[in-house]
Amino acid sequence: MPTDQLSITFTALADPTRRAILARLSQGAATVKELSAPFSISGPAISKHLRVLERAGLIARGREAQWRPCTLEAAPLEEVAVWAETYRRFWDASYDRLDDYLAQLQQKETDDDRNQ
Amino acid sequence: MPTDQLSITFTALADPTRRAILARLSQGAATVKELSAPFSISGPAISKHLRVLERAGLIARGREAQWRPCTLEAAPLEEVAVWAETYRRFWDASYDRLDDYLAQLQQKETDDDRNQ
Repeated sequence: MPTDQLSITFTALADPTRRAILARLSQGAATVKELSAPFSISGPAISKHLRVLERAGLIARGREAQWRPCTLEAAPLEEVAVWAETYRRFWDASYDRLDDYLAQLQQKETDDDRNQ
Repeated sequence: MPTDQLSITFTALADPTRRAILARLSQGAATVKELSAPFSISGPAISKHLRVLERAGLIARGREAQWRPCTLEAAPLEEVAVWAETYRRFWDASYDRLDDYLAQLQQKETDDDRNQ
């Protein structure tokens, strides 16, 4: 398993339950019990997901023994956004090509109308 | 293994060699041989990385039997950027807190200077 921060972050994000946990925490801190509620998976399975998120620095957990609220930590997500943005010109280029194609279609329709 | 597109994309990105391959392809199409050159790993290992990237829709490969150039496909990266951006307010908030903290430090210095 790669051990660089970005690889650890991407591994942590490669699971819909873990992304749903982050989405829930974007609404505010929550306990493990609160986080488990929407999912039909066991407490231990949730705890395992939380450990993966915590190791990636995507969540922090309170130190109180019983009530250990989880909170979102966004710094690794900024790194993800910055990394993905370096490729923006490639998806913008796809839209440019789509625009060109639609313009061509429209031109063809106009020409066809004229020729009828 | 989760099978939703975003999880497949994140899994493919969770490896520094695969991200280096995408960075190389952002400079233009390349053959497997060209892609292997900078890495001290075997041809079959590179081919395996390319299959992961291809399954995630992050690269496309030419159909010519011998010369099968790989090209970057950016659509899944846009999905990553859009997803990460939904958390922007959290890292912006961290900067706001840092700004507040620095302003407090500066205020304290000014006060200390006055009291000397």
